[in-house]
Amino acid sequence: MSETYPALRLRERADKRLRGGHYWIYSNEVDTDKTPLTAFTAGDLVQVEDAGGKPVGVAYVNPHSLICARLLSRRPGQPIDTAFFRKRIRRALEWRERCFAEPYYRLVYGEGDGLPGLVVDRFGDVLVAQFGTAGIEQQKESILNALEAELKPAGILLRNTSGVRELEGLENYTEVARGEVPDQVEIIENGVKFLVPLKEGQKTGWFYDHRDGRAQLQQWARGKRVLDVFSYIGGWGIQALVAGAAEAVLVDSSAPALELAMENAKRNGVDDRVTTVQGQALDALRELIAAGEKFDVVIVDPPAFIKRRKDLAKGEQGYRRVNELAMRLVDKEGLLVSASCSLHLTRDALVEVVRGASRHIDRETRIVASTGLGADHPVPPAIPETDYLKTLFCRVLPAD
Amino acid sequence: MSETYPALRLRERADKRLRGGHYWIYSNEVDTDKTPLTAFTAGDLVQVEDAGGKPVGVAYVNPHSLICARLLSRRPGQPIDTAFFRKRIRRALEWRERCFAEPYYRLVYGEGDGLPGLVVDRFGDVLVAQFGTAGIEQQKESILNALEAELKPAGILLRNTSGVRELEGLENYTEVARGEVPDQVEIIENGVKFLVPLKEGQKTGWFYDHRDGRAQLQQWARGKRVLDVFSYIGGWGIQALVAGAAEAVLVDSSAPALELAMENAKRNGVDDRVTTVQGQALDALRELIAAGEKFDVVIVDPPAFIKRRKDLAKGEQGYRRVNELAMRLVDKEGLLVSASCSLHLTRDALVEVVRGASRHIDRETRIVASTGLGADHPVPPAIPETDYLKTLFCRVLPAD
Repeated sequence: MSETYPALRLRERADKRLRGGHYWIYSNEVDTDKTPLTAFTAGDLVQVEDAGGKPVGVAYVNPHSLICARLLSRRPGQPIDTAFFRKRIRRALEWRERCFAEPYYRLVYGEGDGLPGLVVDRFGDVLVAQFGTAGIEQQKESILNALEAELKPAGILLRNTSGVRELEGLENYTEVARGEVPDQVEIIENGVKFLVPLKEGQKTGWFYDHRDGRAQLQQWARGKRVLDVFSYIGGWGIQALVAGAAEAVLVDSSAPALELAMENAKRNGVDDRVTTVQGQALDALRELIAAGEKFDVVIVDPPAFIKRRKDLAKGEQGYRRVNELAMRLVDKEGLLVSASCSLHLTRDALVEVVRGASRHIDRETRIVASTGLGADHPVPPAIPETDYLKTLFCRVLPAD
Repeated sequence: MSETYPALRLRERADKRLRGGHYWIYSNEVDTDKTPLTAFTAGDLVQVEDAGGKPVGVAYVNPHSLICARLLSRRPGQPIDTAFFRKRIRRALEWRERCFAEPYYRLVYGEGDGLPGLVVDRFGDVLVAQFGTAGIEQQKESILNALEAELKPAGILLRNTSGVRELEGLENYTEVARGEVPDQVEIIENGVKFLVPLKEGQKTGWFYDHRDGRAQLQQWARGKRVLDVFSYIGGWGIQALVAGAAEAVLVDSSAPALELAMENAKRNGVDDRVTTVQGQALDALRELIAAGEKFDVVIVDPPAFIKRRKDLAKGEQGYRRVNELAMRLVDKEGLLVSASCSLHLTRDALVEVVRGASRHIDRETRIVASTGLGADHPVPPAIPETDYLKTLFCRVLPAD
């Protein structure tokens, strides 16, 4: 079975990266004399050809975007329909079912699952999808049909509200696309229950990418006093408490997030050991320092400070500032857990942030563990951009 | 209490890296007009001073080595004696006891535990130490006394047989330094028993650095057919079997290592599912390919192919070759576990090795987990050289 698509002709050698495993085509890689991008509408399907006319695969295009096309299949003529998406989603699902005993995970991770632009998180029998590109938006019905056929969910929510959609010329919207979707659902992560706000929360409602990091934290939580900065609904702090932490202080700027964090603490029977502090992280850290507080474990898991490469210097400054304040609050031989989800901040740069912060306050650190994306975020080695998360577990010692 | 040492004067700005958390001084950083290196004997203790004469700490020197001095303490005048080593070792021990339920781990990890040049592995009540520098060799009695006082071991073995000793002008030797040391001891790693050859094995006898990687492997082993290349005494393969693998083939060039691997399989009741193949890895891989064999999981954990920076290109070639052969043996949607302990091969370079190998045989990979050094290898963020290990878990998929 083969479909005919209009051609998108590449310039000389522009096929190399694609053949090397990448999925993206930049607008300057297209031979626009032969196939002008202006001939296409955002979301159109094309047959990608190398400079010699040899087919490379099927892609969707967006003539208005810097990344003007993304491969959906390396098979020339591949029909892009419900059957195609069902196959991709089935493979993604089979892998997750091998990895996880419970149905709470990122089900589809864009390029990692051969579906550029599509993210789907699974919360038991509810799915929350994010369509990041015009090409995926165009395939909405096929994708929803495929998800329904493969998973028979009670409901599918579209949280199409990301910043990347603007670059694609797409409007933001949240929509119950199929079935029924409650405002909140319960999930289990590393043995701990959480009520997750699907319609009003951050991103898809939960950050599955930190599962491995939080499991690591549980090992070092028993009996400890824990500070969870940028806590959102308590992912780190409450898991620490369930693992035996003596006390946790959660800091977040969002009052509703902290309310839900408290509800999550109750759900796990640890609410007697939680305090919440509503406020900006830097302010809250400064106040805790001024009050002479100390913690055995401090977790700093900020939102991406660096969204675009040009914000790198300013963003690094932000990471330095918050890590240094956090480190001042770490008690003798305590632990700083420092995370960054900024793609543009490399792991080496985060190591340097931690090193600099410790020396600035005349202490030393040792990285004793390092975690990243889990198995539900498969990373294509050709696309380092998909490997954005790093979390360092640092002992903070006296310098001697 | 303060000791007086001869001065080692640094050039302008050469103290910066030390104050930033590093431990090493290169010979070109010494102000040899003021303090000629020729005045020192290998192993001498010195007070390090910055260009202005301000003390930086206490170090041992080796005038014949490129790294001509390593800090032992950032406290000027710190006496370097049994009490000093006891304190460092006690802190290292306390941390391991927090992390591990059983007494099998790297007890001292050089700079990571504030003891440059010293490595000590703990095998229950037996300790195996490696002295990597003249400065540490010089402190032999204090270190042995400190280890005895803190751990009361049945025996301490010195496996002073590393390549770095030659650079330091030291002879290689193996010696039972204290008490009694059996030829083999039993350890438990991730719940699996291993008999470890202390006197005749590789390095200290066991590679504790792969503990986390092997734990990760156990999650994906059930029911699988496993190939363990460079198996040594079976660390990866036998842990996979205990975790439920259907079968494991171990490949190693050493007949005694494979004999011990078989003994280890017996010890865990999985010897009916093990086959050993004695031979060079590349030959064995080619023969398995020629025989049409396929495995669900292939582990490639070679010795360091790149020992010095100048071997980088050749070593990378070696990694490419062995990973590509290994990948050819991975069955549909199977797993390649690719490790490198070569400091000079970065994680990004290993990702590129895996990417290139997969595309070369028209398949795609996804990195689904990534492990490194565990908590018994604390990494000083100022010394990336101490963070040498990376292991990638890669699904190998059809390209479509």
